[in-house]
Amino acid sequence: DLKALLNEYHHADIAEILDDLDNDDAVYVIKLLDSETTSEILMELDEDIREKILKNLSTKEIAEEVEELDTDDAADMIAELPEERQAEVISYIEDHEHREEIQELLAYDEDTAGGLMAKELVKVYETWTVAGCLRRIRGQAKDVTRVHSVYVVDKHDKLIGRLSLKDLIISKSDTKIADIAKDNVDWAHVNDDVEDVAKVMAKYDLEAIPVVNDDQILVGRITIDDIIDVIRDEADKDYQLAAGISQDVEADDSILKLTKARLPWLFIGMFGGLGAASIIEQFNDNMGNFIVLLSFVPLIQATAGNVGVQSSAIVVQGIANGTIDGKILKRLFKEFLLGLVNGVAISLVAILITHFIFGTPYIVSITISIALVAVIVMAAIIGTFIPIFLDKRGIDPAVATGPFITTSNDVFGILIYFLIAKLILGI
Amino acid sequence: DLKALLNEYHHADIAEILDDLDNDDAVYVIKLLDSETTSEILMELDEDIREKILKNLSTKEIAEEVEELDTDDAADMIAELPEERQAEVISYIEDHEHREEIQELLAYDEDTAGGLMAKELVKVYETWTVAGCLRRIRGQAKDVTRVHSVYVVDKHDKLIGRLSLKDLIISKSDTKIADIAKDNVDWAHVNDDVEDVAKVMAKYDLEAIPVVNDDQILVGRITIDDIIDVIRDEADKDYQLAAGISQDVEADDSILKLTKARLPWLFIGMFGGLGAASIIEQFNDNMGNFIVLLSFVPLIQATAGNVGVQSSAIVVQGIANGTIDGKILKRLFKEFLLGLVNGVAISLVAILITHFIFGTPYIVSITISIALVAVIVMAAIIGTFIPIFLDKRGIDPAVATGPFITTSNDVFGILIYFLIAKLILGI
Ligand SMILES: [Mg+2]
Ligand SMILES: [Mg+2]
Ligand SMILES: [Mg+2]
Ligand SMILES: [Mg+2]
Ligand SMILES: [Mg+2]
Ligand SMILES: [Mg+2]
Ligand SMILES: [Mg+2]
Ligand SMILES: [Mg+2]
Ligand SMILES: [Mg+2]
Ligand SMILES: [Mg+2]
Ligand SMILES: [Mg+2]
Ligand SMILES: [Mg+2]
Ligand SMILES: [Mg+2]
Repeated sequence: DLKALLNEYHHADIAEILDDLDNDDAVYVIKLLDSETTSEILMELDEDIREKILKNLSTKEIAEEVEELDTDDAADMIAELPEERQAEVISYIEDHEHREEIQELLAYDEDTAGGLMAKELVKVYETWTVAGCLRRIRGQAKDVTRVHSVYVVDKHDKLIGRLSLKDLIISKSDTKIADIAKDNVDWAHVNDDVEDVAKVMAKYDLEAIPVVNDDQILVGRITIDDIIDVIRDEADKDYQLAAGISQDVEADDSILKLTKARLPWLFIGMFGGLGAASIIEQFNDNMGNFIVLLSFVPLIQATAGNVGVQSSAIVVQGIANGTIDGKILKRLFKEFLLGLVNGVAISLVAILITHFIFGTPYIVSITISIALVAVIVMAAIIGTFIPIFLDKRGIDPAVATGPFITTSNDVFGILIYFLIAKLILGI
Repeated sequence: DLKALLNEYHHADIAEILDDLDNDDAVYVIKLLDSETTSEILMELDEDIREKILKNLSTKEIAEEVEELDTDDAADMIAELPEERQAEVISYIEDHEHREEIQELLAYDEDTAGGLMAKELVKVYETWTVAGCLRRIRGQAKDVTRVHSVYVVDKHDKLIGRLSLKDLIISKSDTKIADIAKDNVDWAHVNDDVEDVAKVMAKYDLEAIPVVNDDQILVGRITIDDIIDVIRDEADKDYQLAAGISQDVEADDSILKLTKARLPWLFIGMFGGLGAASIIEQFNDNMGNFIVLLSFVPLIQATAGNVGVQSSAIVVQGIANGTIDGKILKRLFKEFLLGLVNGVAISLVAILITHFIFGTPYIVSITISIALVAVIVMAAIIGTFIPIFLDKRGIDPAVATGPFITTSNDVFGILIYFLIAKLILGI
C-alpha cells in the first residue's frame, strides 16, 4: 500500500513529492505516516507548504512531530507557528529536557549562531579516560545523529578542547582525555551572525562547530548540513536582490507574492525614467538641428546601466568575501581607470559606427563618444561607491546592484550626456 | 622568529596573509616553512597567486609539496602547471601509490565527480568483523584525515554499503560487518557533474559521498568541504554572469583581466543601443507634434530592462534549484499574467504623473501607458523564454540575465513603443 511504498523513500524525496501535491493530499500523507518520518519530511518542505500543512494539524499532532525532531529543527518549526499556538504546542511536549532545550533555543535570533545551533552534541570532561568517553558516546548515540567531534569541557562546562572520533578510536582506552584533546578548537559565540559562522566553517573546513555563551560555556553545536542551507539561501537572496526582487520568492509562488517582491523595484525604475524624461524636456526646446542626439539616449542609458551593474556586483561580492577592505579611495581610483579603458574602447567603436555607417554628423559622433567615456567613468564610480557606502552604514550592500544602480545611473547618465552636448554643440 | 610565529597560525590564515603580500615575500615564506604546512597554504591561495609562486619553485620543490597533499589537491595542483612541467613533477613523486593515484585522478574532467574526488577513504570488506574494521581504521588513520564513514565493499571492490564510525563504536567487536552495514548508501558516478553531486549531498545532508565507476567499483570519495567550495564558486559565477561579467574575476584582479571580463558585455549593450538608435531614426522624421514621445524612451527602456531581469533571474534560479520543470507554456502564461498585473499598476501611476504633473497631452499619456503594459508583458515573456530555451539547448541559462536580457529588451521595447505610438498617434 501507499504507506509501505513511501517508507521506501528518503524523507527529502517524499518532501519533494509533497511540494507538488495539493494541500489535502499532502495532509493525508502526513497523517498516514509515523511522526518519526513526517517530522523530517515537514522540515524539508518549502516553508509556504509547511505552513499550510501545519494549519491542518492539531496542536497535539504538531507536538508529536516536534518531539521527534532535533532541537534546532523543533525550535524552527515552533517559531513558524502563529504566536497563540506556540505556547500550547510547547506545553504538549512530553520530554521535559527536550522542552526546556527548545525553549532555550527559541530565545535566539534566527540569524545568529544561537538560532541555528542544536542542543544535541557529545560532551566529555577533561578528567575522563578514553574508555569512559566511548561509554558516554554509546550512551548518547541514539540522541545525537552525527558525531563528528566530541567536545571537551572543564568542570564548569567551559569549552576547552575537541577530539575527533578517529582520535578516540586510535587511542589506548586508559588514556586521559586531557592528554589527547586538541586545545585549538574553533567555536562560535551564540550571537555571531550565521553568515560569519559559515565563513569560518568554510575556511577551516569544519563539519561542525561548538557554540559558547559569554562565559565560554558550551551551549550548542552547528552542523555543516545547516550551514550549507545558510550558504545557498544567502546566495539565492543576493542573486534576487541584484535582479530587483526584494523578498524570498520562487518561480512557483503566487502572482500576488511575486508582484509584492517585484513591483516596488519597477516603481523605483519608473521614477528614474520620469526623472530622465524631465531632464530631456529641459533640453528638448533648444535642440534645433541636433534632434538626432535623442536617438542615442538608449545607447547612453544602456551603457550606464551595464557598467554600473558590473562595478557594483564586483564590489558587493568583494565585500561578501572579505577581499575588499577599507581602502575606498584606492578602489574608486581603480574603477576610474577601468572606466577610462572601457570607455575609450567603446567610444572609438561608437564613433566609427555612428559616423561612417549611420552617417551621423562628425561633431555629433564626437559628442556621443565623449559623453560615453564620461558616463562610463561616472557609472563605474557610482556603482563602486554606493555599495561601499551602504556597507559602512551597516546596510546590506547586496541591495545596491541591479535596478537600484541602473536607475540612478539612468538619470545621471542622461544628465551628463545633455550637459556635454550643450557644452560642445551649444544646444 | 618568523617561522615560529607563522607556525602558530592555521594554514588558511597564512594563505590570507600571503594573498596580500608581494610575490617575492610570499615565495620567501613558502620556502621558509615545511612542505607539510606550505602544501596546505598553497591550496588555500587565490589561483593567480598560487600560479605565480609555483613559477618560482623548482620542479623538485613542487613535487615535495604534492607529496604532502591529499590526492585530490595534489592532482589539482599538478593540473594547474604548464603541461611541460606536469610530467616532470609527477616523475619526482617518490611515493609510488600516491603517484599512481594522482595520475588516475588527472584523467578526469575537473567538473566531474572524478575530478573532485580523492583516493583517501576507508574501505572494509563485508566479511570482516567490527574488530577487524577498527584495526583497519587504526592502520589507515594517518592517511585519511576525515573519517565520516567507512565504505563496505564486496570481494570485487564493488560498493555495497556504508557504516558510520558511530555504528562501529556502538557495536560489539565480533559483529560481522555485513550485519550492521547500511545498504542504502548514496554514491556518485565518476562522470557525474559536480553541481549535481552538490545537490545530492545538500539534499541528503551527507558529509561525504563515495564515488564509483561504471562497474560500481569504489574508486574515490568526495568530502563536504570541497562541495562547499563548489557551491560558493557556482553562486559567485552565476552572480557575475547576471551582472555581465564573463570570467571568474575578483575586485583585486588586474585592470586588464577585469576589462577582458567586462568589455564584451559592454559591446553587446552598445550594439543594442545602436539598434535602438536606428529604430528611433525611422520614426524621427514623422514625429511632428509628438516629439515629446522621445522624452519617455528612458522610461520604456528602464522598465523593459527591470522586468526582463526579474523574470529571467527567477527562471534561472528555478532551473538551478529544480523547481521549474518542462511546463514552458504554463510558465509563460503565468509570466504573462504577472506582467499584466505589474503593467497595469505601473501604467496607471504613469498616466497620472505624466498628464497631471508633467502636463503631457492626454493622448500621449495614454499612448505611453498602453506601451508600458505591452512592453512589460513582452519583457516578462522574453525574460522567461530565453533561459528556458537555452537550458533546453544545453547552454547554461545563467548567462541569460543581466545585460543579455536588458539588451534584447531595449531593442524590442523601443520598437513596440513606437509601433504603438504610430497606431494611436499616427506618427
Ligand atoms: Mg533555529
Ligand atoms: Mg574550505
Ligand atoms: Mg580545503
Ligand atoms: Mg540541524
Ligand atoms: Mg548577503
Ligand atoms: Mg515559496
Ligand atoms: Mg558545471
Ligand atoms: Mg580535482
Ligand atoms: Mg540539507
Ligand atoms: Mg537538514
Ligand atoms: Mg579535499
Ligand atoms: Mg550555474
Ligand atoms: Mg583572482
